[in-house]
Amino acid sequence: MKVILVAAISLDGFITRHDEPGSDFTSEADSRYLGEILPRFDCAVFGGRSYRVAPEWMRTRLMPGKLRVVMTRSPDRYAGQAERDSFEFTDGSPPDIVDDLRSRGFRACALLGGGQVYSAFLQAGCVDELWLTLEARLFGNGTPLCPGSFDLSLRLLSHQPLDGDTLLLKYAPASPGPNL
Amino acid sequence: MKVILVAAISLDGFITRHDEPGSDFTSEADSRYLGEILPRFDCAVFGGRSYRVAPEWMRTRLMPGKLRVVMTRSPDRYAGQAERDSFEFTDGSPPDIVDDLRSRGFRACALLGGGQVYSAFLQAGCVDELWLTLEARLFGNGTPLCPGSFDLSLRLLSHQPLDGDTLLLKYAPASPGPNL
Repeated sequence: MKVILVAAISLDGFITRHDEPGSDFTSEADSRYLGEILPRFDCAVFGGRSYRVAPEWMRTRLMPGKLRVVMTRSPDRYAGQAERDSFEFTDGSPPDIVDDLRSRGFRACALLGGGQVYSAFLQAGCVDELWLTLEARLFGNGTPLCPGSFDLSLRLLSHQPLDGDTLLLKYAPASPGPNL
Repeated sequence: MKVILVAAISLDGFITRHDEPGSDFTSEADSRYLGEILPRFDCAVFGGRSYRVAPEWMRTRLMPGKLRVVMTRSPDRYAGQAERDSFEFTDGSPPDIVDDLRSRGFRACALLGGGQVYSAFLQAGCVDELWLTLEARLFGNGTPLCPGSFDLSLRLLSHQPLDGDTLLLKYAPASPGPNL
């Protein structure tokens, strides 16, 4: 199973504009692109904070019919909202989550954030590729892409415009597995 | 006179790795590229902090013979180190600095950082283009490219690889002049 980190960032590396929740700053080109690629994944992982920002959207419109896994310290709190094979909550580590999904036959997992989830997977060596939408914006501050303290080298796989000002950049970690 | 913001950043938007001063993390490709472009500028502006990290390098090897202007709150403190038309210290605002350089006949100014200097010029609408070397690295934390709180939209002018993993991205502010 491949794990693809999918994120839209400002040119100065933020996944939110200042302290605004969500990613309303992203371009129409990014929305179209997400609409094209998300159906190709059979599962997705995101964090409890992302879920709490837009629970109904996450439950009903984000990859309907596919498995969505929410990482949270308190899965029991959400037990009543879970649906087997389509909506689950876990406090497992990134390697545990990846092993579980792989063993259940999933093939392609989209890692949809937020920053804490990206960092946890990156630091555990559990990301195969990063697909980054680079918006032509500068915010000065916001939620960082992957908070922490590490030095992860990547290989550039491709770069292409999504529209006139927005770029799609694809990278892979330079070394396979845990490398921090 | 054109003012070009020149910076190397990690993929998550930092101009330093963690709290290490300077930009030792940058690639050989970035060093070669700087060696090619800096001689095309006839003046450069950078901050007092950048000067204090490597004063001798700034004085003797950074664009020798060209005018280098250091932005500092205490220009008097450095009066003995100034040399007319080649090394100056100022507490002027970005518009004042740009007006002064233009009136003296300079044609191309490289804005070399750090983050506070980039932010001051961006927020004052005093940047014509941004030439960003995007290194294929993730640090989690470091000195932000342009600290502050704003929302500046840019136009993508070009994107090209400097080597296999490093990209050179050129942008211009979407609106001319102060726009924050």
